[in-house]
Amino acid sequence: MSAEQVARAAREASNMLQTITSAQKSAVLQRIKQVLIERRSEIVEANRQDKDAAKKEVEAGKLSASLFSRLDIEGSGGEKYSTLLQGVDDVDRIADPIGQVTLARKLDTDLDLYRVVCPVGVCLVIFEARPEVVVNIACLAIKSGNAAILKGGKEATRTNQALAEAIQYAIATTEAQEGQTKFPERAVQVVSTRDEISGLLDMDRYVDLVIPRGSNSLVQHIKNNTRIPVLGHADGICSTYLDESADLKKAVHVVVDAKTTYPAACNATETLLVHSSLVSTVFVEVAQALLKAGVRLHADDRSLAAIQAAGIAQEPRLAALVTKATDKDFGHEFSDMEVAVRVVDSLDQAIDHINSLGSKHTDAIITEDRKNAEWFMRRVDAAGVYWNASTRFADGFRYGFGTEIGVSTNKTHARGPAGLEGLTIYKYYLFGNGQGSSDYGVGEGKRGFLHKDIPLDEVRNKFVL
Amino acid sequence: MSAEQVARAAREASNMLQTITSAQKSAVLQRIKQVLIERRSEIVEANRQDKDAAKKEVEAGKLSASLFSRLDIEGSGGEKYSTLLQGVDDVDRIADPIGQVTLARKLDTDLDLYRVVCPVGVCLVIFEARPEVVVNIACLAIKSGNAAILKGGKEATRTNQALAEAIQYAIATTEAQEGQTKFPERAVQVVSTRDEISGLLDMDRYVDLVIPRGSNSLVQHIKNNTRIPVLGHADGICSTYLDESADLKKAVHVVVDAKTTYPAACNATETLLVHSSLVSTVFVEVAQALLKAGVRLHADDRSLAAIQAAGIAQEPRLAALVTKATDKDFGHEFSDMEVAVRVVDSLDQAIDHINSLGSKHTDAIITEDRKNAEWFMRRVDAAGVYWNASTRFADGFRYGFGTEIGVSTNKTHARGPAGLEGLTIYKYYLFGNGQGSSDYGVGEGKRGFLHKDIPLDEVRNKFVL
Repeated sequence: MSAEQVARAAREASNMLQTITSAQKSAVLQRIKQVLIERRSEIVEANRQDKDAAKKEVEAGKLSASLFSRLDIEGSGGEKYSTLLQGVDDVDRIADPIGQVTLARKLDTDLDLYRVVCPVGVCLVIFEARPEVVVNIACLAIKSGNAAILKGGKEATRTNQALAEAIQYAIATTEAQEGQTKFPERAVQVVSTRDEISGLLDMDRYVDLVIPRGSNSLVQHIKNNTRIPVLGHADGICSTYLDESADLKKAVHVVVDAKTTYPAACNATETLLVHSSLVSTVFVEVAQALLKAGVRLHADDRSLAAIQAAGIAQEPRLAALVTKATDKDFGHEFSDMEVAVRVVDSLDQAIDHINSLGSKHTDAIITEDRKNAEWFMRRVDAAGVYWNASTRFADGFRYGFGTEIGVSTNKTHARGPAGLEGLTIYKYYLFGNGQGSSDYGVGEGKRGFLHKDIPLDEVRNKFVL
Repeated sequence: MSAEQVARAAREASNMLQTITSAQKSAVLQRIKQVLIERRSEIVEANRQDKDAAKKEVEAGKLSASLFSRLDIEGSGGEKYSTLLQGVDDVDRIADPIGQVTLARKLDTDLDLYRVVCPVGVCLVIFEARPEVVVNIACLAIKSGNAAILKGGKEATRTNQALAEAIQYAIATTEAQEGQTKFPERAVQVVSTRDEISGLLDMDRYVDLVIPRGSNSLVQHIKNNTRIPVLGHADGICSTYLDESADLKKAVHVVVDAKTTYPAACNATETLLVHSSLVSTVFVEVAQALLKAGVRLHADDRSLAAIQAAGIAQEPRLAALVTKATDKDFGHEFSDMEVAVRVVDSLDQAIDHINSLGSKHTDAIITEDRKNAEWFMRRVDAAGVYWNASTRFADGFRYGFGTEIGVSTNKTHARGPAGLEGLTIYKYYLFGNGQGSSDYGVGEGKRGFLHKDIPLDEVRNKFVL
């Protein structure tokens, strides 16, 4: 199928999805779980073929071992497959956002306006070679009433195809009741070639949102090559700032957590900013803890001098971890056990640093001074602004969203960890009784608007199917 | 100043705007009103110069008379200037959206998450040669805490400059109280050349949102030439569908209103869809009313036959208004006293027509059948879906938003008439006590998340300054 055929089929599915009930979505999700259980051996076999091909790539040095391990769908004891099945239930349990009323207003007698949450429409999701993501995103799309076109990493092609077939079979074999819209099979489609992606990026007529998950260069490439809105993040350059009154214990615990628990994650801290009054005290302890954990420090002149003066990196193993920072270390996503360190002379200097070199993802201040914390949180322009907490909390599960479709550093639509809400928008329903706009205004025979809000509690679920 | 200097100044102003209080915004708005009163004669003089230059363009046939009349800032009795001043008060009176809490959740003891409304940041607004728009948009930007870069039609250059100077002077001479952030003068900037616009469209590092108001080609050009999110609409192709059970009186009144009250508006109806059962009854009356109002009908075969059979266009003046529709009349924005007419055989055919050829702006159904109305409203993918009401109601003032920054046909961020809310986004504030993400999870010594919602009523205004 051509990119246009895929996109048009998704659009047609999206139109049908507008009249699907919450109960139908739940039935489809449970059927998907059942089919995934029934077809487990076929899916695992497809995954084995992908892994065999990938193993050769690893041996030839063309593929990294970490990518290879993410490709696996079972895990050593099958626990990854169980997590995948559990994920279907998790999405099923989240409250359905579609049909919620967020504004209700009587414009006049018999002229009622409602703003009602609805699906964005057609979403194109591009992701790395982690096959469980196919299931997760398909479930999020179904729950939010969106049609999804999925493109996974090419190393997982056979697994993705087997999963997509299972999902489509599950949709096709979920029965609709009398009077219900049949759940559209093409609500979830998987494409596998790069050509199809470049064609789909041109389909702004049919595709409403692109969600790329992957490397900075992939996201940047997509942003530069489409007119369709892109939800996601290219960089994850998070900073943690140790303010004048930072508590030593909190500083050490938070910074080590923010850097070392998953250094490749987008919410890991990449830059450590230190108030100059702390260089020979709190900073030394933090630096020592980072070095002990094996973190490489790209230190600016003043922090480098402090490390040397304190003698914390004399051991050769530790000394090898300390290097002089270059300009490009700031505003760089190491995605590894490395951090850039800069000493600043004031809170505002830290804020300026973050606002010019950060990526609007998540930034933290460690301080005992509430006023400074609030100033930092207001002035830093990022999706997440934290006080005495690790930047690693920026995550849909940790925020209590159940699951996430991605993390957005956009300034529009959805910002930060985006769950189901990021896949929704609204439309205005106006219920009239034959009124024209010219009935209203100033002058003889003209009416004025009432503009009387209807209490939301009375109508919140009026449009839930 | 270069585009980069303008954009960077706006970004710096945006950073300062984060700590401006509601009272300060109100003081600035009132000061603007005062300066506009004081400088009225200077502004009117600048406007006279623009009008003199434009008059020559009109005489040379290079400028339309309607554009010329929109250029005027006073009106024949000064009423346009009074409306402009009134507009400042109108914006001042709208509730300040900034600082509202839309989600509050206790992730754990001493680990509180808040989602707080904040300004988008820096907005570039491009608009037609209507100088009062400078004041209106400047006020909306100030109220919502955004820095604005304004580019108005070149015919109004002198007027725009005089207004911009008045606004900047008003900002500069509004005193901040002890401990308050000084309101940044560069919060509102006006640029005047096309070169600056193309440079600014590259400034995705500093500019967060572009809002073009103007012709389809202008909007399309901007969408094709920037990576910055664009809020607005290119086309306004609204349809009204006369369903099988349409009430005659409502049909005539709504359709005539939707087409004739302001045919150049984006919310005017451009396509009339008619159920085949009505061609010789309701449709004939609607067609006759439209013809009497001077509307040209681009009629498809079946509606043309019905008009001829009914003999309603025999008079030469009316006969001249009836032409056979071509394919490109559907999906076309006439912006004039013209409408395309198509007969359909079912409700679903009308919906398909709208979803393939409409522009997702506003579409109406005229019917006495609630089930059909609800099906139409669910299935039509548009910012506004109306039952028995004119598409002309799609407007920020009529919706009770006070004023609007534009009408969006996007599927993300803001949809439909966008007021202050369209200029806002949110960020997540996390208040911790030294927690790391690794403190949570499964296993010895690990904690689970509480994820307990905090009632919004208790904290709604917690972050309002």
